[in-house]
Amino acid sequence: VKDLGKFFQPKSIAIVGVSSKTTGLGGMSYLVRYLDAGFPGRIYPVNPRGGEIVGLKTYASLSSLPEVPDLTTICVPAGSVPGVLEECGRLGARHIHLLTSGFGEIGTEEGRKLDGRIAAAAREHRLLIMGPNGMGPYCPSARLTAWGAIPGRDGPVGIVSQSGGITQRLTEWLCSLGVGVSKAASIGNATVLDVNDCLEFLAADPSTRVIGIYLESVREGRRLLDLARQVNREKPVLLLRGGETQAGAATAASHTGSMAGEQRVWRAFYRQTGLVHTRSIAEWMDAILAFTLLPAPAGGGVFIVGGGGGTSVVHGDICVGEGLHVPSLSAPSMAKLRPVVPVAGSIAGNPLDYWAIYSDPACLGAVLQIAYADPRVHMIIVDRMIPRKAFHMPLDMPDPTPGTIELMRTNGQRKPTVFLVDSDGGDVGLAEAGAAMRAQFCDAGVPAYPSFDRAARALAHLYRHQSHLTKTGAPS
Amino acid sequence: VKDLGKFFQPKSIAIVGVSSKTTGLGGMSYLVRYLDAGFPGRIYPVNPRGGEIVGLKTYASLSSLPEVPDLTTICVPAGSVPGVLEECGRLGARHIHLLTSGFGEIGTEEGRKLDGRIAAAAREHRLLIMGPNGMGPYCPSARLTAWGAIPGRDGPVGIVSQSGGITQRLTEWLCSLGVGVSKAASIGNATVLDVNDCLEFLAADPSTRVIGIYLESVREGRRLLDLARQVNREKPVLLLRGGETQAGAATAASHTGSMAGEQRVWRAFYRQTGLVHTRSIAEWMDAILAFTLLPAPAGGGVFIVGGGGGTSVVHGDICVGEGLHVPSLSAPSMAKLRPVVPVAGSIAGNPLDYWAIYSDPACLGAVLQIAYADPRVHMIIVDRMIPRKAFHMPLDMPDPTPGTIELMRTNGQRKPTVFLVDSDGGDVGLAEAGAAMRAQFCDAGVPAYPSFDRAARALAHLYRHQSHLTKTGAPS
Repeated sequence: VKDLGKFFQPKSIAIVGVSSKTTGLGGMSYLVRYLDAGFPGRIYPVNPRGGEIVGLKTYASLSSLPEVPDLTTICVPAGSVPGVLEECGRLGARHIHLLTSGFGEIGTEEGRKLDGRIAAAAREHRLLIMGPNGMGPYCPSARLTAWGAIPGRDGPVGIVSQSGGITQRLTEWLCSLGVGVSKAASIGNATVLDVNDCLEFLAADPSTRVIGIYLESVREGRRLLDLARQVNREKPVLLLRGGETQAGAATAASHTGSMAGEQRVWRAFYRQTGLVHTRSIAEWMDAILAFTLLPAPAGGGVFIVGGGGGTSVVHGDICVGEGLHVPSLSAPSMAKLRPVVPVAGSIAGNPLDYWAIYSDPACLGAVLQIAYADPRVHMIIVDRMIPRKAFHMPLDMPDPTPGTIELMRTNGQRKPTVFLVDSDGGDVGLAEAGAAMRAQFCDAGVPAYPSFDRAARALAHLYRHQSHLTKTGAPS
Repeated sequence: VKDLGKFFQPKSIAIVGVSSKTTGLGGMSYLVRYLDAGFPGRIYPVNPRGGEIVGLKTYASLSSLPEVPDLTTICVPAGSVPGVLEECGRLGARHIHLLTSGFGEIGTEEGRKLDGRIAAAAREHRLLIMGPNGMGPYCPSARLTAWGAIPGRDGPVGIVSQSGGITQRLTEWLCSLGVGVSKAASIGNATVLDVNDCLEFLAADPSTRVIGIYLESVREGRRLLDLARQVNREKPVLLLRGGETQAGAATAASHTGSMAGEQRVWRAFYRQTGLVHTRSIAEWMDAILAFTLLPAPAGGGVFIVGGGGGTSVVHGDICVGEGLHVPSLSAPSMAKLRPVVPVAGSIAGNPLDYWAIYSDPACLGAVLQIAYADPRVHMIIVDRMIPRKAFHMPLDMPDPTPGTIELMRTNGQRKPTVFLVDSDGGDVGLAEAGAAMRAQFCDAGVPAYPSFDRAARALAHLYRHQSHLTKTGAPS
């Protein structure tokens, strides 16, 4: 395992290439954000002109710093990078984040040559280089957060990604939903440190429980296979792979200079490793939420609660389409439901459709108790409608959300249970109310999704992952 | 074609069964909403107790009204319905909406018998009955809007649906996005008037251009096949079918008392009719938006604009997964792009990734002109990022949305072009800003979607529909 610790918990940072430009991505934006986040260590801006920047003394070169920095962030133009790396090598600065782009990914001979010089410098001086063309390390617990909500939120999710934009998006999302990030590594072209190095590090990191990877290229496929298979048994690994299709692969080539492998090879990869295979950023995020907050399900039977008549029918179809099933409830469950759910205008069964589920947490509680006791039910999706005039709802009814969240806390996820808060529909107020309600649930540790499809798909990932572990003889 | 006109443009309405209860679905809620919407005709509440309700004289029975009502809405309990239908028959009131539930859908012998008596009364007196267990007719141009935004919005979309909740949802959604509804029929159990009757009526209705159907049961499958095949050539028909899977079908049985047909039969149905096959309410709505606002594409080649590096890669993969393709641009297009898009930090090609696309409508305009001239490009998806701090954006930059909308108006959808406004991410302010921006685009006649998957899927439906028409020798 390569020692990447100083990337995420540095005591001192040098930022090489801080111009006075205050907008856009660059040394200045890193400097300002580290200060905003309250980074407690020492920060050294490096700029040949000297003087002061945002109240900090700047240094003409790395060699003139009072110490060897734990982390060196390089933001100078591509052509100047090899010289700075030589200086790092001489001084013994080993942990280097290379933000600069304009290397192999631009597809020119010049770009490829520069990539080669970076790799050579790393070998010669034993440098650990994250990048180029990457956003680098992110660690809220160390207040090392150069993007997203400042100062970010500490949590159990570790991230390795070849896209800066996707890394930012995911960290921001996880923080907004109250889940939080242990460590993120935006590794760009992965010229030196690659996905394997970071995966190995996160596997050994005690603050990381779930791992998300965005990948465009792999140098050592066999090592990734072995590593992923092993890590995935201890910590779920969720993969979003860019370049799955030829169209994507061509783009990946001009994004990080890599060519994606063959479909066939990847199918075998997923089968052998049991890695969670997601296909969009939202699907990836949804699944991470489920793996972070829910226990493993004992099977693929889903109980669908609420939703209305026609909607319940569609929900059942969607579950089956995702590889789950919607079992009939057991005879004892049906007997217990009878006094709880009336006959006309409702559906007592699975799916269950009854108006009071929305408005009365006690009624939902009674239904959940029945589901917890039913051996055919392994997971539960509850539709949480947002009160609105269009649905003949009394808008002045008491808000059932706090009571529902309290109910979920008391029940403590006895079977994986998620909520659907669907605020789609073009109405701005509804969109806002829905996002707020989902955030309330997620913040309380209960996954809430904006569409039934997404809820069902997240649970399907959870179920398939558990099935893989069981089939291959997991410890749990 | 059955004459359903009076359902949607009645001059007088009797509401039988108006209690003084002001909440919940029932005669009172219909009465109040028709008044709120400014329904210009005569409304007669019927209640054996007489007196006044919300300022209107009530009548003890249908027989005591001063005229035979064009539309009779029946809200009395199921057991009393046959008696009211007899009275309708005697008086010659032929257009009847039966809101009451508790018939075949509850699965009892008693419920099935009542259904039989409704069908018998319809045959005997030549009654046109919409329901039971349905929300009935909806027509914004006639101010006949008993649900959703009041008074609703007139537009080109006609709806037939076996779910009241889904009908409400879709009408509300279409109105919020500025598209609007011509006529909607929530037909519930479809005991008398069924999908075929309504489809035939909408096909002949000059104010309807696009037709959405939610279906759980079909009595005359052969007639639906012939009708759908013929109508779909003139007006796109988009079908969401509840009960596609066994789980859904079992629920459909208890929702509207119907059993869904076999998968095999339905696959042949879609192949022969070319109907647009959607699988969730959002997918159905997204496609309706595309069919309503966009011209037919000449092929399946998508140009992807904006999105960032990694995201562009994933977007390409998603297009291919939806059955579209992401062509390389032609050599002349690439030559024209060179002066517009810089090399480092951007991707000039397809997908195209360049920061100025977000901030500068003139730059987007230059890129669109290139795409319009490129014969390989048939459809365009533009990523419209919402300015936010997390992405190193200057938050004080001028809002590019009005300029972008003006650009789209000028270009007049020369090739089907949609926008992606992805506000997912758990942040409440972002959710609100995204919904507002999407509504702005849609209101200006430009479809805007909340995720790339959904944008790509809507365009894929448009492309497949056009392919079907071309293959089967369409007039256009």
